[in-house]
Amino acid sequence: MGVVASVEKHKPDAGIALLMSLVDADMARVNQLIIDMAGANAEMIPEVARHLIESGGKRLRPMLTLASAGMFGYAGDGHVKLAASVEFMHTATLLHDDVVDESEMRRGKLAARMVWGNQASVLVGDYLLGQAFRKMVEVGSLEALAVLSRAAAVIAEGEVMQLAAAKDLSTDEDAYIRVIDAKTAALFSAACEVGPIVAGSSDAMRAALASYGTALGLAFQLVDDALDYGGSSVNLGKRTGDDFREGKITLPIILAYRAGSEAERAFWTRTIEQGEIGDGDLEKAGEILRRHGAITATVERARHYAPAPSRRSTRFPLASIARRCWRWSSSASAGCTEVWQLVVGSRASVVLTPT
Amino acid sequence: MGVVASVEKHKPDAGIALLMSLVDADMARVNQLIIDMAGANAEMIPEVARHLIESGGKRLRPMLTLASAGMFGYAGDGHVKLAASVEFMHTATLLHDDVVDESEMRRGKLAARMVWGNQASVLVGDYLLGQAFRKMVEVGSLEALAVLSRAAAVIAEGEVMQLAAAKDLSTDEDAYIRVIDAKTAALFSAACEVGPIVAGSSDAMRAALASYGTALGLAFQLVDDALDYGGSSVNLGKRTGDDFREGKITLPIILAYRAGSEAERAFWTRTIEQGEIGDGDLEKAGEILRRHGAITATVERARHYAPAPSRRSTRFPLASIARRCWRWSSSASAGCTEVWQLVVGSRASVVLTPT
Repeated sequence: MGVVASVEKHKPDAGIALLMSLVDADMARVNQLIIDMAGANAEMIPEVARHLIESGGKRLRPMLTLASAGMFGYAGDGHVKLAASVEFMHTATLLHDDVVDESEMRRGKLAARMVWGNQASVLVGDYLLGQAFRKMVEVGSLEALAVLSRAAAVIAEGEVMQLAAAKDLSTDEDAYIRVIDAKTAALFSAACEVGPIVAGSSDAMRAALASYGTALGLAFQLVDDALDYGGSSVNLGKRTGDDFREGKITLPIILAYRAGSEAERAFWTRTIEQGEIGDGDLEKAGEILRRHGAITATVERARHYAPAPSRRSTRFPLASIARRCWRWSSSASAGCTEVWQLVVGSRASVVLTPT
Repeated sequence: MGVVASVEKHKPDAGIALLMSLVDADMARVNQLIIDMAGANAEMIPEVARHLIESGGKRLRPMLTLASAGMFGYAGDGHVKLAASVEFMHTATLLHDDVVDESEMRRGKLAARMVWGNQASVLVGDYLLGQAFRKMVEVGSLEALAVLSRAAAVIAEGEVMQLAAAKDLSTDEDAYIRVIDAKTAALFSAACEVGPIVAGSSDAMRAALASYGTALGLAFQLVDDALDYGGSSVNLGKRTGDDFREGKITLPIILAYRAGSEAERAFWTRTIEQGEIGDGDLEKAGEILRRHGAITATVERARHYAPAPSRRSTRFPLASIARRCWRWSSSASAGCTEVWQLVVGSRASVVLTPT
């Protein structure tokens, strides 16, 4: 079941302006709380935290928490604390991921571990996670705590699953989706689910928002995977080819390996499994991926997960916003370098039509 | 204010039999829960967890939680869940510590990172911490969650403080006590404090148990520091000299450096700060430490923190047990290799007398 997207012209820099404008006031409180929570007796902690926090992350997850509480008319400050906690959980994960992946860059800046070392990255990540839990506990909702603590375990489980599958070209698509469901989608899902919880909404709304978050997270990760072989590093603060250089198995590789010739499989074995990467190999990887339509197919999978319009949409302003978040533009010249941006252009109108 | 200990003869292998016998039935439930909580979709997680969990740790912290709930007559299963969570928090810390310290051994076995790598140690530690929080949340006590989540942040803060002070010979005793108060004593304190909380006891009992745990944790860490230069590796599963080889500043070094000659200071600068350690340097370190009575002085500090008898002791069977936990034996031949074991010999009687 494919979908066709028709996209009206709109300003490319519209960004996530609409979502941001909806949560603007609350987001200012989240940002202040994040700064407060990064304070500590050890000077190194706020330094490392600030390096990441101020590095221009989109703060998508806390925005989702704010929006998913706000859509039920919540007026307290619990959603601000939960949003800051969600961002801290995410930041802690980034610090540890960069150590595990031996990444050199993060959001277009040197990774914290390149400045302060792996040791500090591990420990400051632990501190941020501890602070996240402290702040969540203050909100006083055992249901929200259950959702977020489960997410913390599931994220780590997903990272371990990914580590176990690392450099294993026999990883299949199902196994990969399970990994990203855990390592990426679980936090998106939790970020959305705690909104209706703190707002005292129904179990049905909780379930709906959780599933919305999961879908968004899966799509987000798949587009991220695709962009690594075709996007611009300016958009994501990520260098194209990071996944390739780190020998990461992502969906484009899985699809191209399955469909590949003997020679192509030998190429993936040398570069991904054995880590022998030379000049021109990234370009060659891109060629092979495009030859098999693997980048396009990955983006198609992402579109498959994109929240679809439904009769319930009138009750889900967030989902309604999110539908407009998807802008797909195909560059005819590159053939299949589909560039995705999470944007809400106030004039944008994306219509997803089942075909 | 010093204290004098007179120690009756008792069987050296009495171990922690009394405390263990008090919590025996509950501890069996904790052990089963720990095995269940280590389960995961990623095979590597239970493997790594089992490596640590089955490596003969004393499980002192969960025993303290069980005892500190049991002493208030608690009869539910919350203390079992909290005890398992406390042990998981501790295990997660060990996994991350070994990565940070580049340790090769842990409890007399290869450190997990030597078997599965630093990456797995970081991620499995994260998973165990996530599982710990999930289990705590199940207990449904926001007060216990507040205590344990605070401890999680404080422990990490202490580790960062230690990292910042690493190889810094100008670290003074006060700064060092602050570090171990955070990195070690905070969890002992939390492990004890959640007992009266889950049992619905008073704020006064909470405060008393928390402060008891802090004292025990400080003493525990100081004795551990002393043992590194004079104990037997059989007792702790730790090789003598680990701290020295890792360039760790501990109280014996701080005391000896302060009192040291020019030549001795040059020795510490070369070995600890610059990490240039050759044959015979560990022995020489021990000689210098003994020359200044630094190991004895460290153990004296530990005794200073040991919970003292008080009129309240009748209301504190746990403290009463703990007083009997301290066995000090001086080896006349070694001069000052005081060996400490946390033991409750049923025949043992240690009398701490203020002098």
